[in-house]
Amino acid sequence: MLKIAVLVSGSGSNLQAIIDNIESGYLNCSIEAVISDKKDAYGIDRAKAKDIKTYILDRKQLGINISSEILKILDGKVDLIVLAGFLSILQGELLHVFKNKIINIHPALIPCFCGGGMYGMKVHEKAIEYGVKVSGCTVHFVDEGTDSGPIIIQKVVDVYSTDTAKDLQLRVLKQEHKALSEAIKYISDGRITIKGRKVLGI
Amino acid sequence: MLKIAVLVSGSGSNLQAIIDNIESGYLNCSIEAVISDKKDAYGIDRAKAKDIKTYILDRKQLGINISSEILKILDGKVDLIVLAGFLSILQGELLHVFKNKIINIHPALIPCFCGGGMYGMKVHEKAIEYGVKVSGCTVHFVDEGTDSGPIIIQKVVDVYSTDTAKDLQLRVLKQEHKALSEAIKYISDGRITIKGRKVLGI
Repeated sequence: MLKIAVLVSGSGSNLQAIIDNIESGYLNCSIEAVISDKKDAYGIDRAKAKDIKTYILDRKQLGINISSEILKILDGKVDLIVLAGFLSILQGELLHVFKNKIINIHPALIPCFCGGGMYGMKVHEKAIEYGVKVSGCTVHFVDEGTDSGPIIIQKVVDVYSTDTAKDLQLRVLKQEHKALSEAIKYISDGRITIKGRKVLGI
Repeated sequence: MLKIAVLVSGSGSNLQAIIDNIESGYLNCSIEAVISDKKDAYGIDRAKAKDIKTYILDRKQLGINISSEILKILDGKVDLIVLAGFLSILQGELLHVFKNKIINIHPALIPCFCGGGMYGMKVHEKAIEYGVKVSGCTVHFVDEGTDSGPIIIQKVVDVYSTDTAKDLQLRVLKQEHKALSEAIKYISDGRITIKGRKVLGI
């Protein structure tokens, strides 16, 4: 059974989707730890409600050392780290030890509206401003760059000319919940391999 | 009835889709002229087969004057200029006279894989190289920038890890044929308006 850690910064609705998909039997994995870089993240409450081990790492206090703290907690304990709306940038040794074993979800169709610290609502504001007619979300492996690792899954939503950024966020979020669990399933099934920038098997 | 001109550089399969959609009654418009910037473009043969007036403008000979030549031919004659795989860059007076009356189709989901002279097969090669899991096409109004005008329609296709650029091109092309005619229909129905970068009504 795949052992995973889920890292959150906010409400943790993607974490909840993973929990639900484990309980329904869709996902054959166990959540060994939930780590938040914000102490009041609601994702921590969701984890505690399911008796999952939780860790709070203050990113203001830890700064760039947050990655080595995460490594200390997870090294040898989990097979996969899932960033589910986790806003701190990971770097250093953690990325080497967990090479091709960290995945992230971005609320846009990479390479559109990504990089340069664009995350959360800002992504949807940019998409609305630009006037795109479709957007979506991307699950990708994490490497040294920002939103630059090999892409596992992309899911698409329509964008309407009457949409606010909030409307778009809610529509994309529904797809995020599906996409992240699908990606975990592909990995736990041993279905995918990485070749250069490409994720094969899908 | 909306009078249109279609500008081509290649095989003109998008032109053929427009012709077919006029003949089937889906589009209520007439093609007043087909202009090619290459003398051996097969799109010219397709137009001649339907007794549509054709013009060949040698872009090597005309250079940046191609826009004023197009303006001479079309000024006062058509309501909409449709770029259907037309590779010359339009500029100057033509863009003012036909402001918000020129549309283009790009074989990717703008703002991904666009700008910088990226067109045709090169777009699909970039998408395959990048490892995206979805791509598509975009119909947009033409302004002074490259692929930068307000977006009317975007259609999406899946990208598989086994795809070649050619596979992707053929899959996207099918959607181009639909998207371009849909955009012309929206315009001929008077359904859309432009506000800033946004196309309203869809």
